[in-house]
Amino acid sequence: MIIFVDMDEVIADAYQRHIDWYNQAFDGDFTKEDCLGKEFWQCVPDSHQKSVRAHASHVGFFKDLGVMQNSQEVLEQLNREHDVYIASAAMQFPNSLKEKSDWLDEHFPFIPWKQRILCGHKHILKGDLLIDDRSYNLENFKGRSLLFTSPHNIENNDFERVSSWKEIASLLL
Amino acid sequence: MIIFVDMDEVIADAYQRHIDWYNQAFDGDFTKEDCLGKEFWQCVPDSHQKSVRAHASHVGFFKDLGVMQNSQEVLEQLNREHDVYIASAAMQFPNSLKEKSDWLDEHFPFIPWKQRILCGHKHILKGDLLIDDRSYNLENFKGRSLLFTSPHNIENNDFERVSSWKEIASLLL
Repeated sequence: MIIFVDMDEVIADAYQRHIDWYNQAFDGDFTKEDCLGKEFWQCVPDSHQKSVRAHASHVGFFKDLGVMQNSQEVLEQLNREHDVYIASAAMQFPNSLKEKSDWLDEHFPFIPWKQRILCGHKHILKGDLLIDDRSYNLENFKGRSLLFTSPHNIENNDFERVSSWKEIASLLL
Repeated sequence: MIIFVDMDEVIADAYQRHIDWYNQAFDGDFTKEDCLGKEFWQCVPDSHQKSVRAHASHVGFFKDLGVMQNSQEVLEQLNREHDVYIASAAMQFPNSLKEKSDWLDEHFPFIPWKQRILCGHKHILKGDLLIDDRSYNLENFKGRSLLFTSPHNIENNDFERVSSWKEIASLLL
């Protein structure tokens, strides 16, 4: 089985990085629990939204992101049993490209370069399963789609949902 | 029609960069005509091969590469009539990722980020046509394959061959 796995919000905690950068810049005290059902930029005062929406373009945003709980051990096992590819719609953020490659080298060294994809549209991917937090990526994928729970997508009921890597393990291993 | 177009040797003249860097470092006078049927590293003395094979890992190798003749105007027209994606197996060279993105911004601005793919294996691409200079990419692609002529592949007879962007235009436009 060919499995595509998104990066941000699925194996890398970009949402928390948004919160941390904002809290530090604006002396805030947001947590993920304050953000359910929203993109993080929608949680902050109007006058701060532009700043938050620019986060991902900055050098360093994707460096040293937290690793989503249990993603390493479950992906390592999935990679033994299936053809696993990391697929991130990273081309929007040129500064992220090497940071993402380095991050994968550090935290997912068992996924070699041949199994890594930095792309735009994901509907050009041919495989059996896509695990992603974004409905617009899952909508046009022809195989099975798993929506990985993230603060911004908790109200979406259009896809089979998984909320943890342990849940993915129980479904797929 | 979904068309995937490789970068190096197809729209970007990486082979000439190898030659230029080598000639400069070793006071050489190689031209492409000296290299027919070979990878460039196979053309140089044994003691220089390691140096040539390391070229693509260096910062700057993919910066300011020459643009393959007629590729811009033909791709701009193809992009109006079809769904064109640039697909480069760049993940092997992390230093190349932003250089490739910047290069596309400069020379192919009409191909936006959503239509750019930096990957490893290309058999995960789902589409109708792949234009590439590497037989190992074309072999596992399920659609139509066009082998773009490069010094290293002139002896390959396994694929439909194109030797210029004017030829691609006459086939596809």
